[in-house]
Amino acid sequence: MSDSYKIALCQLLVTENKEDNMRRAKERVVEAVSCGARVVCLPEIWNAPYDVKLFGKYAETATGPSSTMLATLAHKHGVLIIGGSIPEKSGDALYNTSFVYAPSGDIIARHRKVHLFDVDIEGGVSFKESETFKAGEGFTVFDTGFGKMGLAICFDLRFPEMFREMAEAGAHIVFLPAAFNINTGAAHFDTLAKCRALDNQIYLATCAPARNLSASFTAWSHSCVATPWGEYCAAADSRETIIYADIDVDYLQRVRKELPLGKNGAG
Amino acid sequence: MSDSYKIALCQLLVTENKEDNMRRAKERVVEAVSCGARVVCLPEIWNAPYDVKLFGKYAETATGPSSTMLATLAHKHGVLIIGGSIPEKSGDALYNTSFVYAPSGDIIARHRKVHLFDVDIEGGVSFKESETFKAGEGFTVFDTGFGKMGLAICFDLRFPEMFREMAEAGAHIVFLPAAFNINTGAAHFDTLAKCRALDNQIYLATCAPARNLSASFTAWSHSCVATPWGEYCAAADSRETIIYADIDVDYLQRVRKELPLGKNGAG
Repeated sequence: MSDSYKIALCQLLVTENKEDNMRRAKERVVEAVSCGARVVCLPEIWNAPYDVKLFGKYAETATGPSSTMLATLAHKHGVLIIGGSIPEKSGDALYNTSFVYAPSGDIIARHRKVHLFDVDIEGGVSFKESETFKAGEGFTVFDTGFGKMGLAICFDLRFPEMFREMAEAGAHIVFLPAAFNINTGAAHFDTLAKCRALDNQIYLATCAPARNLSASFTAWSHSCVATPWGEYCAAADSRETIIYADIDVDYLQRVRKELPLGKNGAG
Repeated sequence: MSDSYKIALCQLLVTENKEDNMRRAKERVVEAVSCGARVVCLPEIWNAPYDVKLFGKYAETATGPSSTMLATLAHKHGVLIIGGSIPEKSGDALYNTSFVYAPSGDIIARHRKVHLFDVDIEGGVSFKESETFKAGEGFTVFDTGFGKMGLAICFDLRFPEMFREMAEAGAHIVFLPAAFNINTGAAHFDTLAKCRALDNQIYLATCAPARNLSASFTAWSHSCVATPWGEYCAAADSRETIIYADIDVDYLQRVRKELPLGKNGAG
């Protein structure tokens, strides 16, 4: 496990134009690599609008054009890519799926969103992801040249058990592609992101789409990196941007030593 | 279970003068009752300074003068008292213990702090509670005329599993007497208090001592009530005060209906 390495979270503006989404994703990955990022993460559903009625139309398999583009980019630039998520077609089923591409270009992990976003808030957002997507199962931890990492998607953030499992399986950082909406995002995202990192004394890196006010779904955006001490070391507003953070495993170890929670948690 | 009832959190200034601490606690309970509170909560270690070297000197049993005073007050005023915590002497052991007094004056629950405060932060606080206190075991949920309530103490807040257990056992509110220090309090208390309430869709009511700058331990104070939506409906600064909140079970049910987390959590 290296002691410190740079990550980049690409908060992409996502539109209904798939080719444009792919072009922008590619440009931003290249930009992040040129700025020294060793790990680059994309948002939840980065190649399609966040709309249950459209997921099927935009869906691809693990070897479709979106995934192939990221595998090629990872290999060409020798970078680890956390591929946000895409609507994944697998047989007759659709999943909200994140693939991870090693610097070799190989897919080394896959997380299918476990907790689907079904809410109906009076005067706020209504959304029923389970009408379209099938739920994945279990938590996802994978090995990299930087140590073990965890991977979850958006609404998964609401379930502390899953983060405890990832931390106990050895993840020192969890990546969370996450398109929280403007309603629950404003109310809850800060608290949840900081608390999952703090409870488990890990880094948490979330990557959202930029806010697109012409889309049917208004994202909260605000991608962030929370530290094992439960504060941000990087945070975006709602516009398209890349944010960077240095992931410092020595610091993580220091937090665990100074504030030992290991008896009942990670650390 | 009543639909709405008023609680009071007495953020007491605690000094080395035990009689004065008891007098002030009594006055504040009476004041809270006169303002309509049906449940009154005191801070963690309200009858003694928060100092490992002094806990033994101030310790009492469940039938000692501090506990007897609260039982008498509960009965006289027909109020439920969450008795903060005191250093409890039990045989040769000392515990950091919270007793709950029904309006009958009977002790209906007891929680001995499970997770003791052992930290050593560079340039910050160092404290080793386990040198003096023995740890309690398990979580604490009890029945009242207002429904089931949970009870935990301070550092217990760092362990999400305990709050999940209390919520799953039916607690709609958890009381947390809590003397966080000024260092980790400023860094973590907000995040933890809101997140435990939000994750479990319960109320969380914390009660701290007021800040005493002449004491060896500087409390963060900032007693608060977090709602099932993860925001505060009452919050104190660092001075001696009473804060009040209306606990609304209808609102709790609405949150659980609009944002269902029940598949994997409470709700």
